[in-house]
Amino acid sequence: MTKTTVAKWDFFEAAFTGPSAGNPHIDVNFEAFFKQNSRVVRVPGFYDGEGTYKVRFMPDNEGDWTFLTQSSAPELDGQTGGFTAGAAGEGNHGPVQVSHQFHFAHADGTPYLAFGTTSYAWTHQTLELQAETLASLKGARFNKMRMGVFPKDYPFNTNEPLYDMYEVDAEGELDFDRPNAEAFRHFENQVGALRDLGIEADIIIFHPYDRWGYCDMSPEQDFRYVAYLAARLSAYRNVWWSLANEYDFLLNTKPMAQWDRYFQIIEENDPYRHLKSIHNGDVNANYDHRKPWVSHVCIQNWDVKRTQEWRDTYGKPVINDEPEYEGDIMLPWGNISAPELVHRYWITLLRGGYAGHGETFMHPDDILWWAKGGPLRGEAWKRIGFMRDLLEEDVKTGLTPIARASNWPWSRVSGATDGEVTYIYLGEHQPIIWAPGLPQEPGDYEVDVIDTWNMTVMPAKIVDAPANHPTRHGAALRQRRPDAAFAVELPGVPNLAIRVRPRR
Amino acid sequence: MTKTTVAKWDFFEAAFTGPSAGNPHIDVNFEAFFKQNSRVVRVPGFYDGEGTYKVRFMPDNEGDWTFLTQSSAPELDGQTGGFTAGAAGEGNHGPVQVSHQFHFAHADGTPYLAFGTTSYAWTHQTLELQAETLASLKGARFNKMRMGVFPKDYPFNTNEPLYDMYEVDAEGELDFDRPNAEAFRHFENQVGALRDLGIEADIIIFHPYDRWGYCDMSPEQDFRYVAYLAARLSAYRNVWWSLANEYDFLLNTKPMAQWDRYFQIIEENDPYRHLKSIHNGDVNANYDHRKPWVSHVCIQNWDVKRTQEWRDTYGKPVINDEPEYEGDIMLPWGNISAPELVHRYWITLLRGGYAGHGETFMHPDDILWWAKGGPLRGEAWKRIGFMRDLLEEDVKTGLTPIARASNWPWSRVSGATDGEVTYIYLGEHQPIIWAPGLPQEPGDYEVDVIDTWNMTVMPAKIVDAPANHPTRHGAALRQRRPDAAFAVELPGVPNLAIRVRPRR
Repeated sequence: MTKTTVAKWDFFEAAFTGPSAGNPHIDVNFEAFFKQNSRVVRVPGFYDGEGTYKVRFMPDNEGDWTFLTQSSAPELDGQTGGFTAGAAGEGNHGPVQVSHQFHFAHADGTPYLAFGTTSYAWTHQTLELQAETLASLKGARFNKMRMGVFPKDYPFNTNEPLYDMYEVDAEGELDFDRPNAEAFRHFENQVGALRDLGIEADIIIFHPYDRWGYCDMSPEQDFRYVAYLAARLSAYRNVWWSLANEYDFLLNTKPMAQWDRYFQIIEENDPYRHLKSIHNGDVNANYDHRKPWVSHVCIQNWDVKRTQEWRDTYGKPVINDEPEYEGDIMLPWGNISAPELVHRYWITLLRGGYAGHGETFMHPDDILWWAKGGPLRGEAWKRIGFMRDLLEEDVKTGLTPIARASNWPWSRVSGATDGEVTYIYLGEHQPIIWAPGLPQEPGDYEVDVIDTWNMTVMPAKIVDAPANHPTRHGAALRQRRPDAAFAVELPGVPNLAIRVRPRR
Repeated sequence: MTKTTVAKWDFFEAAFTGPSAGNPHIDVNFEAFFKQNSRVVRVPGFYDGEGTYKVRFMPDNEGDWTFLTQSSAPELDGQTGGFTAGAAGEGNHGPVQVSHQFHFAHADGTPYLAFGTTSYAWTHQTLELQAETLASLKGARFNKMRMGVFPKDYPFNTNEPLYDMYEVDAEGELDFDRPNAEAFRHFENQVGALRDLGIEADIIIFHPYDRWGYCDMSPEQDFRYVAYLAARLSAYRNVWWSLANEYDFLLNTKPMAQWDRYFQIIEENDPYRHLKSIHNGDVNANYDHRKPWVSHVCIQNWDVKRTQEWRDTYGKPVINDEPEYEGDIMLPWGNISAPELVHRYWITLLRGGYAGHGETFMHPDDILWWAKGGPLRGEAWKRIGFMRDLLEEDVKTGLTPIARASNWPWSRVSGATDGEVTYIYLGEHQPIIWAPGLPQEPGDYEVDVIDTWNMTVMPAKIVDAPANHPTRHGAALRQRRPDAAFAVELPGVPNLAIRVRPRR
């Protein structure tokens, strides 16, 4: 028999028939051990309904792998098999992991600059609308999608979901001991569709916007749900775990220790250690992202000039996954202008963090991108895509702020470097000449002025850096030292950036 | 002999001939006691050069006043006289004082909403330029001017001053024991010119931008200088005392205790207790404005959404006298766009504070408004004038924030009330419908939409407030309670404000 071949970072799946009586989710343990030479990786399996048990494995190394199952059910125990892991296909760079403390990279070393968007309940809409969402994503440049497992009940989100995530019992109630395999199959298929578009699925496990009872599951049901998700979905290389959207609004029913335990359960059941974080509601209720199971900081906070503060506080990559959304609804987190959202992206990125996108434009059929997907109706997404393309020309590690934000003038303007490239974003500032942050040493630089809104890149006019007039009594050190080896002339309009890199 | 008549809050001046030998500034004490019935007010006099001693008194009550001098010089001692204080003239509302804890009012009760601008060294430029500055002020709506006593040495400020503020000695050096009476006379005349335009003179006593030696005066010289200023200028009703521009940049030569002492010396020599504050450089170096001699908070800070925090910290009126300036110079405190400065004004005012204006546009002859005056070249000043006129239609006390900034949604948008009027400023937010902060009770309201940039006021279209969909698991209180008795429709563009007042 020819062995199955699976590309590295795709996944191998094996299915077995086992008990269907009682509640297999509770009654049956099932796992497999995947081996390559002396290396053994434990992989949890899951019950997929109708007597079928599955195990999925994402190889991270080429070559032959074998497996051996272990189960409390005799017919599932001691099963063996194997497959060959081949080369990763084009565009398959492996899962994203933390890199260089504050940044991300794929497993093959390709830098990953997070440019995410948000559509909480897109997988719960009609199939037509879901297809439209995927088409929108194909035409945009987002590489991460925040999306909930559970449906959403909220203003503009009053429709019933495509699937219940749990089976309906004889009384017509959701049975939170029995995941609906069809619903999860659909969900994971859409995770795969995102993967095929090069988009990470930032999977939100819990959220407070519920009318069906998902928020009222018992701790044991929650724990089984989290383990089930990890078993089903970890083999998808584009999975990120977001424990919650706005976890603090759920503390009334799920105390802090429970959140910690969810993280641990994922660590117990995700052999690949996908990225994990958790998103706050109140700006003063950040989870303690220093806890060891948190891979990166996920927050919502409109005050983006504080980005360095969050890097410092937690010492991990910072993704500000809700710096308010472009839109026009009444809720102020969802009605900033497109220029303002683009502005917040540039400030966040050039202070060493990452920002998230969302759109909340009122619509007669309540098709708001942020929850339901569909078409992108705003103006920010194009500028965000432009920014991504621009940064990906040069950024290899991730952006490091030029200086402490407390150092003049970096509390007011934003600037960052990566290797030989420097970016400065002036935002609401509109000088007609600029030097701070430009190279101290003369050299052959390519210097461009970037209009972040009009998406243009124009060579800068280089001029002598002003020799400072003495600026302060007693401040001898500041006297007559130019800020940089040269300065650039600017047109005196807002929302410009400067890029400096060695001429190639 | 007919008694002199002086309008209330104008001033009476008496001049006497006394010793001119030695150094009268050091050698001669001279003061007067002004009496009305049993009330006695001590008023310090000053030496005005060439053997002339003067004392000035601003009556705050109509009727007859007499005075008796006291001096270490026999010819200045025991002099008597008097005058009659008449009614205040049109537009003379008396000095500005703190009112209702966080606000200001003139002595006659007229509310004073601070709309200040900045021209640090305007009185040190050519007389032609000074006349132009006054003409600009006449055409604008500013009612406060921040201005230094000493000349300024700084980028774009390299010219020699019109007058040295001290006499030049035989070696050609400034003699910091001998104020130049001609220079101070000119300065106070310009304070008077501002008064006649209805503009408060926010007099900056010290600043760190010096090449002439003013920063290196001894403590004793500083103390005499402060007392001299108080004696000369306190009788001008439009005087405010600003101990420094950026005092913290002078701490290397003037330690904190010295700053406290300056405040005390003013209290000892200003019988009218004019407003007193002191302005920081570094945003983390605010003076402790809780000290009893500080009447109001003067700061520079671009982060204007923090305005409530400063009110809370100090419990006094907050004037943010440098939320960055409109301009295009390289220094980021001086190159924000006009829309951004107008935006910061609205945010500051609608969070219960006051903001200051400045313009720093590069100019071939270095005529930058912020230091030298001349013409206003920017676009913000007109919108600031529009805002002042608009607020003065209704505000009687001063604006109180609608809610704690920590309360949803008031960290993101700004809103304030005064009596029956409510203003909401949406800024970068562009909802097409709005209800939060609008009246809870139905009534006959006049509701307008204000375009803060285009300076238009349009009647709002009133619609039903959305009945909230339940928004959160367990948050029963938030269910189906509209935010207000009604909502307004908006055009979905940034920088709008809403005004609600009873229909008249």
